[in-house]
Amino acid sequence: MTTLTEATIEADPTLPIIRITRDFAATPEQLFRAHTDPELFAKWVGPDRMTVRIEHWDARNGGSWSYAAGTDDAEFGFRGCFHEVRTDRIVQTFTFEGSPDNVSLETLTFERLDDGRTRLHAQSLCDSFEVRDQWLASGMETGVDQGYAKLDGLLAEGVLGR
Amino acid sequence: MTTLTEATIEADPTLPIIRITRDFAATPEQLFRAHTDPELFAKWVGPDRMTVRIEHWDARNGGSWSYAAGTDDAEFGFRGCFHEVRTDRIVQTFTFEGSPDNVSLETLTFERLDDGRTRLHAQSLCDSFEVRDQWLASGMETGVDQGYAKLDGLLAEGVLGR
Repeated sequence: MTTLTEATIEADPTLPIIRITRDFAATPEQLFRAHTDPELFAKWVGPDRMTVRIEHWDARNGGSWSYAAGTDDAEFGFRGCFHEVRTDRIVQTFTFEGSPDNVSLETLTFERLDDGRTRLHAQSLCDSFEVRDQWLASGMETGVDQGYAKLDGLLAEGVLGR
Repeated sequence: MTTLTEATIEADPTLPIIRITRDFAATPEQLFRAHTDPELFAKWVGPDRMTVRIEHWDARNGGSWSYAAGTDDAEFGFRGCFHEVRTDRIVQTFTFEGSPDNVSLETLTFERLDDGRTRLHAQSLCDSFEVRDQWLASGMETGVDQGYAKLDGLLAEGVLGR
């Protein structure tokens, strides 16, 4: 099995879905924590030039979340609700406040690999191919790659425990 | 414009979406109330033979809901979260507890028609065509048609105000 130290970002050929796959030197529990603990999440998500400020965070079934990601010049809001928060699976909605009527449904799963690593599968389901393709053309890979590199760093530092 | 006194239930040809369209002798505000007030919602949703018991209901951005629909013999659970609750638009997740990993994203809009009626547009987005087609083959039209007929009745009785 190839180790995916870089994220793969794929457009489904027949569904309005983006799939991101990435391996981490981590346990599923550590990746779960990285996505549900607001202080940890704020430390790694998004591109390097952005600072994330959590506004609201309630990571449980039926809870919700919102955060602002900012540079010196501008701030961008994101929000959604947690449909399901399970140690092996998180399902949540996602909206960029700049385009409030585009809502996507995100499903994260944490697959334990044989070599001690864990493979993150992140699926974003949009309600049109146009919106899906706008996301793909938005430069999202910078935030994905830089964000996951920060998460690698936190794991190496031991900040996420075991 | 044709008045849709019976619901149309359509499968999108290229997206894993079900679209339901139905006209009501109602204002958009009344349809909003019918979908957000738990006591009213429980009076009309689903087939005639089912009684709906609301377990949890918090109809606001980032809130959540759950209810059980039962006959004398069995009870079926449903749950989700409210991503957005706006007078002209509700976006929520939806899961049947019998199939907990199938989550759909529902978008309801209320379109005011020229003749004083309001057209309800209900869109259900699934993450595969298989799941979408299972819903279409499940006999869902009985619950849709009987539920909306009950809602017609509540409107005629004046239970939903103006």
